[in-house]
Amino acid sequence: MTKSADTKVKDRDDGLDMGPLPNLMGYLTRRAQMAIFEDFHARFADEDIRPAQYSVLKLIALNPGARQTEVSAALGIQRSNFGPMFDALEQRGLVERRPLEADRRSLALYLTASGEAAMVRLDALVEAHEAKFVKRIGLQGKVTLQTLLFLLTSGE
Amino acid sequence: MTKSADTKVKDRDDGLDMGPLPNLMGYLTRRAQMAIFEDFHARFADEDIRPAQYSVLKLIALNPGARQTEVSAALGIQRSNFGPMFDALEQRGLVERRPLEADRRSLALYLTASGEAAMVRLDALVEAHEAKFVKRIGLQGKVTLQTLLFLLTSGE
Repeated sequence: MTKSADTKVKDRDDGLDMGPLPNLMGYLTRRAQMAIFEDFHARFADEDIRPAQYSVLKLIALNPGARQTEVSAALGIQRSNFGPMFDALEQRGLVERRPLEADRRSLALYLTASGEAAMVRLDALVEAHEAKFVKRIGLQGKVTLQTLLFLLTSGE
Repeated sequence: MTKSADTKVKDRDDGLDMGPLPNLMGYLTRRAQMAIFEDFHARFADEDIRPAQYSVLKLIALNPGARQTEVSAALGIQRSNFGPMFDALEQRGLVERRPLEADRRSLALYLTASGEAAMVRLDALVEAHEAKFVKRIGLQGKVTLQTLLFLLTSGE
């Protein structure tokens, strides 16, 4: 067999030259986030809950009566995306909107009794999911990671 | 003014109770990735290039003739998403498909001359984008971050 195009194709199987990509902050954090979310998706498949949905439910559980604008802003979710996401959770009977006492034009968000019950299961799933990753870098590694990611995204 | 519902609403302005959310690995990496991508989007608005599109262009620049399946696998992009993304770049004249010499059923990916010219501009934008974030944590911080994210996403 000659050193032909076949050989070149064979070389490809050893992997592509990634160049500087794996060292870029954006690429690095994106791939890490994707890997973590993949584990989340697998664990939460039966509950049919995505990471952003869990964040919304958790924030409402911690802050019953919070306004929609507060919750979306705190989580960095665009208001145009938050509406449909909340609607879907409401249709599943997990959350509800009620007029805000102090300002009847605003709506306050609450978990339903069914939502409260779901949170017990979801929190347990998150705990196991989180423990898997903390185990890999240790508690000190987690603190260092938090500090670096905080510094990375703070500033002018 | 009495300590009424108004006071409670006022309290909300100080921010919601985030509970354990900011300490969860998934939330942490997602928010960091979002902040980094926000800077990317602002810098690349005139070029109309998103982070995933840059990764695809860069990988093809580094590996001319790579196959579609190799590029999508290396970047963790689902094949169903890769096709339309590549088509859009092809319609803009930045990339092209050619039959693979060793296997005429497969297609090899290349940058066009216009794509090569674009990469010079895009690489310069990425360099400035990256420098902004590295400056915040230093080169040693970057190495530590890389190590932690690698450990975080490696394992059983």
